[in-house]
Amino acid sequence: MTTSFWLRNVRPYGGDFEDIRITEGRIAERLSARAEPVTGSDIDGQGQLLVPALVESHTHLDKTLWGLPWRPHSAGPTLKDRISNERQILRELETPISERAGALLEQCIARGSLIFRCHVDADPALGLKHIEAMLALRERYADLVDMEFVAFPQAGLVSHPGTEELMNEALRLGVEVVGGLDPCGIDNDPIVHLTKVFELADKFDRSVDIHLHDAGELGLWQIDRIIAFTERYQRQGRVMISHAFCLGMKNWSEIHPLAERLVANRISLMTTAPADIAIPPFAELVGIGANICLGSDGIRDAWSPMGNGDMLERAMLLALRCGMRKDEGICAAFEAASHHGAKALGRHDYGLEVGHPASFLLLPSETLSEAVVARPAARTVISRGVVIARDGCLLQSRL
Amino acid sequence: MTTSFWLRNVRPYGGDFEDIRITEGRIAERLSARAEPVTGSDIDGQGQLLVPALVESHTHLDKTLWGLPWRPHSAGPTLKDRISNERQILRELETPISERAGALLEQCIARGSLIFRCHVDADPALGLKHIEAMLALRERYADLVDMEFVAFPQAGLVSHPGTEELMNEALRLGVEVVGGLDPCGIDNDPIVHLTKVFELADKFDRSVDIHLHDAGELGLWQIDRIIAFTERYQRQGRVMISHAFCLGMKNWSEIHPLAERLVANRISLMTTAPADIAIPPFAELVGIGANICLGSDGIRDAWSPMGNGDMLERAMLLALRCGMRKDEGICAAFEAASHHGAKALGRHDYGLEVGHPASFLLLPSETLSEAVVARPAARTVISRGVVIARDGCLLQSRL
Repeated sequence: MTTSFWLRNVRPYGGDFEDIRITEGRIAERLSARAEPVTGSDIDGQGQLLVPALVESHTHLDKTLWGLPWRPHSAGPTLKDRISNERQILRELETPISERAGALLEQCIARGSLIFRCHVDADPALGLKHIEAMLALRERYADLVDMEFVAFPQAGLVSHPGTEELMNEALRLGVEVVGGLDPCGIDNDPIVHLTKVFELADKFDRSVDIHLHDAGELGLWQIDRIIAFTERYQRQGRVMISHAFCLGMKNWSEIHPLAERLVANRISLMTTAPADIAIPPFAELVGIGANICLGSDGIRDAWSPMGNGDMLERAMLLALRCGMRKDEGICAAFEAASHHGAKALGRHDYGLEVGHPASFLLLPSETLSEAVVARPAARTVISRGVVIARDGCLLQSRL
Repeated sequence: MTTSFWLRNVRPYGGDFEDIRITEGRIAERLSARAEPVTGSDIDGQGQLLVPALVESHTHLDKTLWGLPWRPHSAGPTLKDRISNERQILRELETPISERAGALLEQCIARGSLIFRCHVDADPALGLKHIEAMLALRERYADLVDMEFVAFPQAGLVSHPGTEELMNEALRLGVEVVGGLDPCGIDNDPIVHLTKVFELADKFDRSVDIHLHDAGELGLWQIDRIIAFTERYQRQGRVMISHAFCLGMKNWSEIHPLAERLVANRISLMTTAPADIAIPPFAELVGIGANICLGSDGIRDAWSPMGNGDMLERAMLLALRCGMRKDEGICAAFEAASHHGAKALGRHDYGLEVGHPASFLLLPSETLSEAVVARPAARTVISRGVVIARDGCLLQSRL
């Protein structure tokens, strides 16, 4: 039996009222809203703003302490301090990933994210523990969300023997993306690091996502090398550089040639819109056609106690960070948490076009800008045609 | 008849359970929580975290567009563009201040702020309109909140004839504080500007609060001059410099001597923790004993569509801005939205000591840091012993 119903009286992106017919979880038809009353199994959108469900392009669910008693942040100030502090905490943690990551995932879903890229630690000290737990978690929520994984060498790929083999095994088990991390600053052997990353991507025909915290000229040189590897291994459109603070540390005139090569190779950038460090120059990059998406990164974990998984709030933080006060800029920040994320993750069926999954966020907001500014708690999440969350709560928790 | 009751089972600042006796709207007694059940007119705090009500040290309620249809931001990029754009909008706006500012004030109260410093435009083009409307608004909410006003020469004090006379009249009518604005960058005559400001403060025996957006050396020179005027007019402990981006634009070693003189003269600083411009170095300044408080500045107005008046969120933004992840830093950010604000505004009866007003915020949070990070919507606001707001809504709206 075909299930088909109408989602009535919604305003896509804050525009005119429409009725949307949903068949088998997909958008079957879009019409101007009709005058007759809503009846039967149809849903009344009550004039709310409709957008596609949000995209969380970078998070680390496996590391979260969500749902546990408050744990004061205890790491030293450097990146290496944070890595070693976290390894200690994760080794001692007794609450299973299914509980911690599950609780956080439900929070993220309830705030409207239905597409995720999650980095999962591939660390010989942890073995396959995180990878297997996250694969099981994905199974448990497979009917609600689309989630892809990155095999992430948090402690170093070259510097930690056994990591490459573990990443190989993770990819074999179904992890989609090959991760990397500061080929210079953490691994201290950039060419060997990048060779291993791109060889794995080539072997399994996968995408690449590299964390790059290294600053200034050191970061920029690595971006240049990542572009060269992307060309050599023909990974165009399948590489993401996460953070890339260095792109915000020089004048645009110095960055521009490198940025043009990122665009030419369709390499996406991911930012969390941090307020305490430089970020890639958003408006300039978007202006030349770069694809910049948004992620929460760690949410209440050993790296930082901050974050709530709300990608609408993340878009607001990006607008604040870049001083974007006009509707155009605020909507561009929303794009980073939606369409740009979907593009970076290679999802071609994202958006409100007929035929695409009926995965929506309904907001009691007047305009898209107002939704980003106000981040209303009263929101309704629809996944593949089914209402799954209201007012910040998943209707049927699986914890 | 004396009204007296117990607020039972609360955790001040997240510490041990206490019972607090409230008599005539003030804290009469604090005891370790007793085991017996809550009865009669006593209130069960249910183990929630208790903090003093929040302090909004810098806002412009008279300018807000809160409650009106969404208005896309329309100003050009410079400070002068924004001033002239706003003057045009405010002149044409038909919704009275009582409605706009009242709606926003109720939002701020419901989020837990009960002490306010509001800047009110003193602009010959507006006459006494804003000042009289805000004085009437204050009367309407006088039983709920403490609010003080700054006569604010938004368009310029020296450059706009009639402004000084209007400020004089505002002070005579009951406005408490003499405002100023970029003596160099806007008024183009710093010594005449500061002389007028401090002469008015001297004449009425009032405090001073100067908006300082000017950058780099130009801003720093004006801070030096404000300190000199503070000394000459003996306004120690009664001067605030708002924004002071310039203090974040140089190395601490260059700023340090000036900062020591700010401390010696007990001049407070106010920041909104903006993410798109430099801010005064918070940790270093607090470390030498400077008093830095937090404000929302404009909330959804012609300057910016951002903001929601939640000072707990403002503290979170400050922690994000300064990379403060540890409990100590997050709690310092909270201090800026509470005790430091009260100190800047010269309120000596602020806090949880016996004898002080029973004006509290109750939060379903485990620790103070967690409250700042999570900013729970479910919060209870108590003003002078009376529960006036729950879950983000004022119980009895006066609109």
